[in-house]
Amino acid sequence: MLFKLFFKRSFSVGVSNYQRTRIMSSSNLQPKFDKIFNKIDELKPSFIDRLAKAIEIPAVSGDESLRPMVVKKSEYLVQELESLGFTDIQVKKLGTQPPPVENPNLQLPPVILSRYGNDPAKKTVLVYGHYDVQPAALSDGWASEPFKLVVDEEKQLMRGRGSTDDTGPLLGWLNVVQAHKEAGIDFPVNLITCFEGMEESGSLGLEKLIAEEASNYFKTTDAVCISDNYWLGTKKPVLTYGLRGCNYYQIIIQGPAADLHSGVFGGVIAEPMVDLIKVMGTLVDSNGKILIEGVDEMVAPLTEKESQLYEKIDFSVDDLNAASGSNTSLYQKKEDILMHRWRYPSLSLHGVEGAFYGPGAKTVIPAKVSGKFSIRTVPDIDSEKLTKLVVDHCNNAFKALNSPNKCYAELIHDGNYWVSNPYNASFTAAAKATKDVYGVDPDFTREGGSIPITLTFEEELKTSVLLLPMGRGDDGAHSINEKLDISNFMGGMKTMAAYLHYYAESPEN
Amino acid sequence: MLFKLFFKRSFSVGVSNYQRTRIMSSSNLQPKFDKIFNKIDELKPSFIDRLAKAIEIPAVSGDESLRPMVVKKSEYLVQELESLGFTDIQVKKLGTQPPPVENPNLQLPPVILSRYGNDPAKKTVLVYGHYDVQPAALSDGWASEPFKLVVDEEKQLMRGRGSTDDTGPLLGWLNVVQAHKEAGIDFPVNLITCFEGMEESGSLGLEKLIAEEASNYFKTTDAVCISDNYWLGTKKPVLTYGLRGCNYYQIIIQGPAADLHSGVFGGVIAEPMVDLIKVMGTLVDSNGKILIEGVDEMVAPLTEKESQLYEKIDFSVDDLNAASGSNTSLYQKKEDILMHRWRYPSLSLHGVEGAFYGPGAKTVIPAKVSGKFSIRTVPDIDSEKLTKLVVDHCNNAFKALNSPNKCYAELIHDGNYWVSNPYNASFTAAAKATKDVYGVDPDFTREGGSIPITLTFEEELKTSVLLLPMGRGDDGAHSINEKLDISNFMGGMKTMAAYLHYYAESPEN
Repeated sequence: MLFKLFFKRSFSVGVSNYQRTRIMSSSNLQPKFDKIFNKIDELKPSFIDRLAKAIEIPAVSGDESLRPMVVKKSEYLVQELESLGFTDIQVKKLGTQPPPVENPNLQLPPVILSRYGNDPAKKTVLVYGHYDVQPAALSDGWASEPFKLVVDEEKQLMRGRGSTDDTGPLLGWLNVVQAHKEAGIDFPVNLITCFEGMEESGSLGLEKLIAEEASNYFKTTDAVCISDNYWLGTKKPVLTYGLRGCNYYQIIIQGPAADLHSGVFGGVIAEPMVDLIKVMGTLVDSNGKILIEGVDEMVAPLTEKESQLYEKIDFSVDDLNAASGSNTSLYQKKEDILMHRWRYPSLSLHGVEGAFYGPGAKTVIPAKVSGKFSIRTVPDIDSEKLTKLVVDHCNNAFKALNSPNKCYAELIHDGNYWVSNPYNASFTAAAKATKDVYGVDPDFTREGGSIPITLTFEEELKTSVLLLPMGRGDDGAHSINEKLDISNFMGGMKTMAAYLHYYAESPEN
Repeated sequence: MLFKLFFKRSFSVGVSNYQRTRIMSSSNLQPKFDKIFNKIDELKPSFIDRLAKAIEIPAVSGDESLRPMVVKKSEYLVQELESLGFTDIQVKKLGTQPPPVENPNLQLPPVILSRYGNDPAKKTVLVYGHYDVQPAALSDGWASEPFKLVVDEEKQLMRGRGSTDDTGPLLGWLNVVQAHKEAGIDFPVNLITCFEGMEESGSLGLEKLIAEEASNYFKTTDAVCISDNYWLGTKKPVLTYGLRGCNYYQIIIQGPAADLHSGVFGGVIAEPMVDLIKVMGTLVDSNGKILIEGVDEMVAPLTEKESQLYEKIDFSVDDLNAASGSNTSLYQKKEDILMHRWRYPSLSLHGVEGAFYGPGAKTVIPAKVSGKFSIRTVPDIDSEKLTKLVVDHCNNAFKALNSPNKCYAELIHDGNYWVSNPYNASFTAAAKATKDVYGVDPDFTREGGSIPITLTFEEELKTSVLLLPMGRGDDGAHSINEKLDISNFMGGMKTMAAYLHYYAESPEN
């Protein structure tokens, strides 16, 4: 019913103000864009239909019992790629999933490689997306079945798990190919797809595959484009040129051989939990300042040029407060918030393993506790140096306690930060495309989180990576009622198309 | 097989050195004791058989599915009480178990009241015990099936869940009655039994029943004797005259409306976990010193008389280290350890609710965290005053952080300390009995833990309570391979018998 209503009005709504008033940049591409954009508008019903069919498959990678659904979704994608004329489709098996797993023979979902065009005269763009999704259930509080795409005619959005993260953007690339074909416009680049089904569960196996295919399937890649992030807010398009890294640590304090009764041993035993709380308390202060000596000194100084980027960005403390649902911001100025989210390190205390964690009251002295914390890293923090500083700091803080317990601090895992050049050919092409579609220059943003595969692509393929978001900051990617605004879906596909053309024409790679 | 071997040797073993060399205190009770003690020795096989039949019933009060077994064990007890001539047996139903329960209609196990003798000329002693047990499974590491009593002939002990906690001691009272009957000795007091089936799960319903029966079933009670604790060590009998209380608190810190991604919000949001760790870090130091202002000042000063009690006690830091399986004692001197366990307060940090607690790494900023801690209380700490000090301290410590989060500190529950007069009629009788049976004066000990029902009996019945342990400190009451040494079983019953006689003869109540 909602679908029917929607289709009737499909040509008069779902177009942003930016689009209506857009001024095309001077370019010989104008006539091509008109044809392609019109075709994208025309194909909207079939694009929504393609997305709806994909959303119906509950491809939750984190739920072992749904693994067959993840595989089924990969088969749906292969079928769509075939029907659109993609070639050299390879369904790459990644082997069994490493522990911890319930089923020791559980197979990882495949990575789907395919090509559209293979002309040595053209540049080659590798596009990455993932077809797996986060868990979702109606009982979590969804307004409708999460695995049924619902078009909300009034709000002009599509609701369903995967709509924005990342099935919508992934299918965007297929839709762009279809629009070119049906509009009779030559595709400007050779396209390579790298679609994985394990992104929401750590991208297991992907790094190895990229390394293996760097000099094989991916050999001719000139640029990588990842469409798996979001606008900073809800109104202004962005291009993302940086991500923080993440070093995850634990401090283990070991005392007695087993958990003890606090009545019998309280006051006569050195309690590991007391030592742990003391050491954890020396890491960061309540204003977010990292107290580990030497960390701040590793942070790259702020340049005038970088500083100017923050000033232009459409953001305010109100956006942060809305996102956190509270007034707990450490900063009031936009620039301070953005810089502390993107270009300065942060330290978060995540929890304690081994101690009582349930509701109610339990009077046990835990024998061995492990405090978990992570540091978001930025240029020019060296991971190894940071780990040495962290471990030394923890050991010193523990020594100062003069406790008979034992303390051990260690890195659990690290993933490097990533910063690209927002003025390179790929970003310049994407900026022009964004301006054409939305009528404004995009904000150049970073993200505070990590997408480790970004760095893997850059390092293994020795090429630039562009993060080109389709959705908005309020899409609720990992939350209930995940949605993608129809204007973002349409505008996103047009931006993808224009980006490929601009990039194809750029003199450099 | 073990039983058979055991019975053959039953009259030559199982008697402690103390017993062999004992010197009876001058008393007209000597001839009676000879007869009773000999009868107890003679009846050993049937006493062990009575215990074995009881142990076979897995009366785990903490396991809802085993509730019928708890009831079955109560029925076994009633049958034994009837056969021994106990009268006025009342099976007191306590109603449905309050939440959290899986089965909302789950009935609490009954309390069994009964009398042996009702002579107004005699004193009345109420004996408390519990017939429920802790969970146990062979797979936990038991050397034999936990719900089958195994007599280890070599080590002269009986292994099985409930052997020492508390089925062995509880049946001890029945056995003492049987020994008197068969020896033809008049029972020296009126005995009232109060046997509950919920002790291992918070004694739900018992407090109310005691209050109700204080002026009814329990009206004539002169003294209460609880046999549900242990010797301090493994060699020397003790009488217990004090328990610490326990005030349990939580500090809740509330920040954002929901858990947040540490990449996106780390460094820009005031993290509740950071504030919590800071506040928890101000409560106690690594040497066990409570840092909350005003708490130490409430502790009763140490008198010369009390001080002397510690000097005599058979204990060393090695015993503490053996019990904790580590060298993490805060004190080396025996007196310091005992006093900090028994007569000084202690503060233990138990854990954090709401934060990540699993193995591995999770990068979430918890929105609301609750830190749990408890203070073991001692004379003369007033619970209400203590709570005010704790809450004020937490609020002040949080204010000093200047955090935009919200902090709330509160008492979850409290249970008062208990200290009796170790020189009263009941303790004096028990000390004489111990000397008669074991040949040494008992150590007068306290315990660091809490048995809240002790205080309830004292307050509701306005009478003295004696803690008369049967087992040893290494019995593993809540652990695997729970055992009761046969010499403790036999010696314990003889002590119970002698205690009743001495108490009956004492001029005061």
